[in-house]
Amino acid sequence: MDIGFIGLGNMGIPMVRNLLVAGNQVHVFDMSDKAISEAVEYGAVATSSISELAKKVDVIVSMLPTPAIVKEVMVSPEGVIPNAREGTLVIDCSTSDPKTAVQLEALAVTRGLNLIDAPVSGGVPGAKAGTLTFMVGGTEAGFLAAKPVLTAMGQNVVHCGPPGSGQAAKLCNNLLLGVSTIAVSESMCLGVRLGLDPSVLANIINSSSGRCWVSEVYNPYPGVVSGSPASNDFLGGFACDLMIKDLSLALDAAHGVHQPLPMTAASKQFFQIMSHQGNGAKDITAIVRMFQQ
Amino acid sequence: MDIGFIGLGNMGIPMVRNLLVAGNQVHVFDMSDKAISEAVEYGAVATSSISELAKKVDVIVSMLPTPAIVKEVMVSPEGVIPNAREGTLVIDCSTSDPKTAVQLEALAVTRGLNLIDAPVSGGVPGAKAGTLTFMVGGTEAGFLAAKPVLTAMGQNVVHCGPPGSGQAAKLCNNLLLGVSTIAVSESMCLGVRLGLDPSVLANIINSSSGRCWVSEVYNPYPGVVSGSPASNDFLGGFACDLMIKDLSLALDAAHGVHQPLPMTAASKQFFQIMSHQGNGAKDITAIVRMFQQ
Amino acid sequence: MDIGFIGLGNMGIPMVRNLLVAGNQVHVFDMSDKAISEAVEYGAVATSSISELAKKVDVIVSMLPTPAIVKEVMVSPEGVIPNAREGTLVIDCSTSDPKTAVQLEALAVTRGLNLIDAPVSGGVPGAKAGTLTFMVGGTEAGFLAAKPVLTAMGQNVVHCGPPGSGQAAKLCNNLLLGVSTIAVSESMCLGVRLGLDPSVLANIINSSSGRCWVSEVYNPYPGVVSGSPASNDFLGGFACDLMIKDLSLALDAAHGVHQPLPMTAASKQFFQIMSHQGNGAKDITAIVRMFQQ
Amino acid sequence: MDIGFIGLGNMGIPMVRNLLVAGNQVHVFDMSDKAISEAVEYGAVATSSISELAKKVDVIVSMLPTPAIVKEVMVSPEGVIPNAREGTLVIDCSTSDPKTAVQLEALAVTRGLNLIDAPVSGGVPGAKAGTLTFMVGGTEAGFLAAKPVLTAMGQNVVHCGPPGSGQAAKLCNNLLLGVSTIAVSESMCLGVRLGLDPSVLANIINSSSGRCWVSEVYNPYPGVVSGSPASNDFLGGFACDLMIKDLSLALDAAHGVHQPLPMTAASKQFFQIMSHQGNGAKDITAIVRMFQQ
Repeated sequence: MDIGFIGLGNMGIPMVRNLLVAGNQVHVFDMSDKAISEAVEYGAVATSSISELAKKVDVIVSMLPTPAIVKEVMVSPEGVIPNAREGTLVIDCSTSDPKTAVQLEALAVTRGLNLIDAPVSGGVPGAKAGTLTFMVGGTEAGFLAAKPVLTAMGQNVVHCGPPGSGQAAKLCNNLLLGVSTIAVSESMCLGVRLGLDPSVLANIINSSSGRCWVSEVYNPYPGVVSGSPASNDFLGGFACDLMIKDLSLALDAAHGVHQPLPMTAASKQFFQIMSHQGNGAKDITAIVRMFQQ
Repeated sequence: MDIGFIGLGNMGIPMVRNLLVAGNQVHVFDMSDKAISEAVEYGAVATSSISELAKKVDVIVSMLPTPAIVKEVMVSPEGVIPNAREGTLVIDCSTSDPKTAVQLEALAVTRGLNLIDAPVSGGVPGAKAGTLTFMVGGTEAGFLAAKPVLTAMGQNVVHCGPPGSGQAAKLCNNLLLGVSTIAVSESMCLGVRLGLDPSVLANIINSSSGRCWVSEVYNPYPGVVSGSPASNDFLGGFACDLMIKDLSLALDAAHGVHQPLPMTAASKQFFQIMSHQGNGAKDITAIVRMFQQ
Repeated sequence: MDIGFIGLGNMGIPMVRNLLVAGNQVHVFDMSDKAISEAVEYGAVATSSISELAKKVDVIVSMLPTPAIVKEVMVSPEGVIPNAREGTLVIDCSTSDPKTAVQLEALAVTRGLNLIDAPVSGGVPGAKAGTLTFMVGGTEAGFLAAKPVLTAMGQNVVHCGPPGSGQAAKLCNNLLLGVSTIAVSESMCLGVRLGLDPSVLANIINSSSGRCWVSEVYNPYPGVVSGSPASNDFLGGFACDLMIKDLSLALDAAHGVHQPLPMTAASKQFFQIMSHQGNGAKDITAIVRMFQQ
Repeated sequence: MDIGFIGLGNMGIPMVRNLLVAGNQVHVFDMSDKAISEAVEYGAVATSSISELAKKVDVIVSMLPTPAIVKEVMVSPEGVIPNAREGTLVIDCSTSDPKTAVQLEALAVTRGLNLIDAPVSGGVPGAKAGTLTFMVGGTEAGFLAAKPVLTAMGQNVVHCGPPGSGQAAKLCNNLLLGVSTIAVSESMCLGVRLGLDPSVLANIINSSSGRCWVSEVYNPYPGVVSGSPASNDFLGGFACDLMIKDLSLALDAAHGVHQPLPMTAASKQFFQIMSHQGNGAKDITAIVRMFQQ
């Protein structure tokens, strides 16, 4: 298949590689020539503009850092929606917000395109291993058309509902991740200060009603999960500043529908304090230092 | 074995039944004659005072509602510690606080007793089914001696560390349960208000980084987990007022060791508001109503 | 002087009346014909569009409900900035956000206009009595030119700094108002529940280090300040939903500069819960009901 | 008058001096001989035990650091209540909790004593200048008898209600002080980051609805109020760890009466984080550093 791919960051590059491995021809674009060169080394075809790319392919995948950039890439006169061929399937894998996703889909329809939102979970390791989860919002037809493309990059492709639902599900999941990270940090630090061994405590929690993905897989207490960011000086993983972005998107979406989210709001503030103290690029589990002796 | 059992509430009665089923002779005491009569119906032997009970047996199990009552039952002149025979094993299954547990154990030692703290997780259903988890704090010898007794009432008996460790582990677990319950409520209500189907959303979360025991087993959104309190008008389950008690014990323990616990503190306040609005006897998942349209 | 006035809501109408009382000719516009008729009754001159109004006067005052409406009124082709005469002084009294104010001022300069942001404090009673405080952001020249106009509507006209500073100061003040309202509610309810007379407690606070504008002038405990919304079933005053708007603007501005605001964020959530429970139109002091027995 | 004074700390010493200046004979006791010597230098009479002191005087003033120490000093066999002469007036100026105050008063009555709670506001500077505020809980007779004694040490002596009311009022005031300190810190830091001059912003707030004692007298932003701890590297003033103590007492009292106090609870946690980062001895306004660029 001929696939266009826009956005060659830490996530985009390994996603392109997996599309290539699956036997596709991949035409790529990014603002950075260096990123394009890297993708070309792996076998991708360079393009010099989004409009050139859009005119060449039947499927376009985008992986962009902010909703504002997504909007620009999609709607500017030189962008995807004005230039794509009728019938093109556009798969936006960026984490954006449900409202933007709904608006872009409606606009795409007016030009005969099928646009779905398909944000991912799994991070850079998942992108490399091809084990990402895609949360898809869009029409049934769009979901079915996108499935083989997404399966080349991930393990788990879930249809969440109509346009915007993928973004909504992503935000709902990530706010839980944010709150849990702080709550597990509190729990572990209290236990250790009360004399418990951190690994013993983690085991007890993980077989009890307090267990969660963070306590099991991503425990913020250093040394509890080997290979985790917490056991590696909080390098790699999910940067605090990205979590602030996701929590902000969740709070904005909540504001728009008058939904109270008090624990989410509090979590954002603690990550903001952490970032403010110079640790915005560290993994989210470094929040444990705010509570650790 | 001859076992004494003090405290025949909603938890105590089924625990006594399981001890009887395992073939033990169980001598019981409670402030309520009615509770004693019920236990006697199941085959227990009534006693008329704690001191009488304490003089008759080699193992005493207690299951009491507050640290203050635990202290009174243990240390008053007519209580367990002054009246138990030398060498008696005392297993306190009440949820108390680590400091009290440490103090009682030290006092017990002076009288030649072996006292362990062994608070439980699993609630009334776990007590009935004999599937409780016991978190044990105490000496290795105490743990080994208690294990066969506890195994008759539960599935999972974990040695957490020295005296007080069982209470510490219980509090660390339950604060996570409290925070998660509110966080999952926020996430589910946001998702539904953004147009997601609650069961679809729960499935996505449960295969992603936001998953936790609450989202999987005890989802607060009505209808998502059949048979849960949330699907049964928030009846049964874990009462809000008991969660307030556990969060308060965790916060008090944290205060004593200068440990910040901001999300835990916030959670306690939301449950306090729920209780204040007349819902203190409802299951903790009824907090979802504070966020649900 | 010939003054144009756009936005004839609960605040706008009495502000227009005070401009008329001071001897000005006031040309008015609003989306509502009814509002225009009311202003005309008081002596104002109706106009049929913003562009018509803009072409007639040398000073334009606007008082609009949201930043989005401010932007539209100012920048749309039929709006203020494209149609005003060179040299016009534009005074935007709306509560908006610092970034929007900065952008509008920069745009106004390109057309030879002088635009200042001058949000108000004092509410409808202050607007009626002509005792508003204006927090002015803009050039020194703009401030001096606006002062006589603003003095006709208020008592206190403060130059806060360059464009946007008026909005910044307003948000900084109002977040304190929001937090104080909840904090005083907590304090008063605790005191009463501990047996104190609410008026005695308010007096003590008001002569101690806990005193604030809310405890003195706007005490949320019913009956403490006669004539306050709290003593009048929480009618009138400052609507909860408007406070949510102001706190959101403050949090958005903070997000843009990476400023943590944890107590502000928490306050917004409590007002959101209050609104969610059906009380968004009530005065902010009705939050006391969340804490009152 | 012959007055006994127990507790010669930073507050006690200057209070004794003011009692001496007013012409009283003051008999003093403290655990520290050094503190007694200091008081003797100023003209006080040393005693060697609380019981000796209690037998000598008709009025006893105490100024002690924690409720636990207050209880011990009052009720131990060698303490005030068992040893004071019938008719003695006991004035406890310590910050304690309402429940303890009620219990001690009831016990004092059984021995024919009149005990009142009279915690202070004003800190060390107020103690030195004799300008303290005393919040008195107790009988009308006790209040009237204590008034001349308290007037020698303070400016403002308020009868708050029955026994315990003084403590209740103190806690209600101080929780507001705690919340305000953080809220003003947020407001000032946001304003400065948005480009406002801190003194200009403080002036605007102080003439608007956000004003409070903290913004006016004790502004946490360095340089705004000259002579304040914030303008003196956060030295002197009201130590963070003492605020944690007062907020804890307020939260405990609230817990006892099922009163939600969410902003108070959040404030305590932020001060706990500040203390945890090594700044527990700094003035409370040093919390501003958590938010300042």
